[in-house]
Amino acid sequence: MIFYYAIQTVSVATQIALEEAGAEYKDQLVNFKTTEQRSDDYLKINPKGRVPALITDEGIITETPALLAYVAQTYPKAKLAPLDDPFQFAKLQEFNNYLCSTVHVNHAHKMRGSRWVEEDDKESQAAMTAKVSKTMAESFLLIENEVFVGPWVLGDNFSVADCYLFCISNWLAGDKVEIKDFPKIYDHHLRMRERPSVQKVMAIHGI
Amino acid sequence: MIFYYAIQTVSVATQIALEEAGAEYKDQLVNFKTTEQRSDDYLKINPKGRVPALITDEGIITETPALLAYVAQTYPKAKLAPLDDPFQFAKLQEFNNYLCSTVHVNHAHKMRGSRWVEEDDKESQAAMTAKVSKTMAESFLLIENEVFVGPWVLGDNFSVADCYLFCISNWLAGDKVEIKDFPKIYDHHLRMRERPSVQKVMAIHGI
Repeated sequence: MIFYYAIQTVSVATQIALEEAGAEYKDQLVNFKTTEQRSDDYLKINPKGRVPALITDEGIITETPALLAYVAQTYPKAKLAPLDDPFQFAKLQEFNNYLCSTVHVNHAHKMRGSRWVEEDDKESQAAMTAKVSKTMAESFLLIENEVFVGPWVLGDNFSVADCYLFCISNWLAGDKVEIKDFPKIYDHHLRMRERPSVQKVMAIHGI
Repeated sequence: MIFYYAIQTVSVATQIALEEAGAEYKDQLVNFKTTEQRSDDYLKINPKGRVPALITDEGIITETPALLAYVAQTYPKAKLAPLDDPFQFAKLQEFNNYLCSTVHVNHAHKMRGSRWVEEDDKESQAAMTAKVSKTMAESFLLIENEVFVGPWVLGDNFSVADCYLFCISNWLAGDKVEIKDFPKIYDHHLRMRERPSVQKVMAIHGI
């Protein structure tokens, strides 16, 4: 397998999951500084021009929640998801989908506002940037109070949801949100940093 | 099971899937006109204040891609997902996650801009609204040219991805996008409208 990633992006989540699974893969940097994600070569891999993307023997997979479930299903011995329990699997997916469709989207309004208003409308983009710390804090308050079971996201068992939460909780400082305001998530963050998988991936990303 | 939905929202996707599965459930309207989704009673069901939500014997599930996979896994005889093939299941999830995190988010900028800028910043919200037809057309062009296999989303087999695509393709007219510009999606839309499941759900939603 070849895993396409970019530095300090959401690809961190899947990369940690691949390490937790003990997967054999080659990693391939996509350089966002030269907008390589928009190059003809990369658009052949992912026409959406985003990371991550995973080339498997059967084809290419994109989108973080899809990749996380795929890693868990393909390496069942690593026990990264409640694969035999549709309800618990749905709770895992519910969490991952909240991160991708609400929390990551909140964060994206800091730097990627031109996705949703015209490129030269700097005023609206600045208005979006200004609200990010508020929307991210609201999302993490909901996770802290309503969603996170503990000690891991789903309860007693570690899962790919923990890889994803760690990835996004790493963005809080840059979004001007104090992670210590969320004691359970902060504790989770510190415990994640002790894992060899996380240390290996953080070194790659210079986090 | 009790399925909480709101008229002409994304809950249409899961409701069609439940009908395709032959699931027994009670449906319960959440009235967006009176912002019932923000009522104390509903926030106990879904603290995110969104639809859909499904009450099962084991607990409550939210988020459309999570619900779609859950319906497919819980009613395997309906064959609504490639459950025994992790790669094909990942392709299903990739599609559903693209709809939730990119396409639905594009659409939400028409009416829900105050999620990402201050409530009284009507100018930025109008700038967001103005770009929706462009972002939705771009997303559907990508689905038409790069993603949709045909005759169904994943190929020969109908799946919950088809329920979700139909739901969102119904929004195109309101977003000032001409569905006929995407011949495969338009053909899919017409074939979906012939299904009894879709006709039942459309009647509920007055579509």
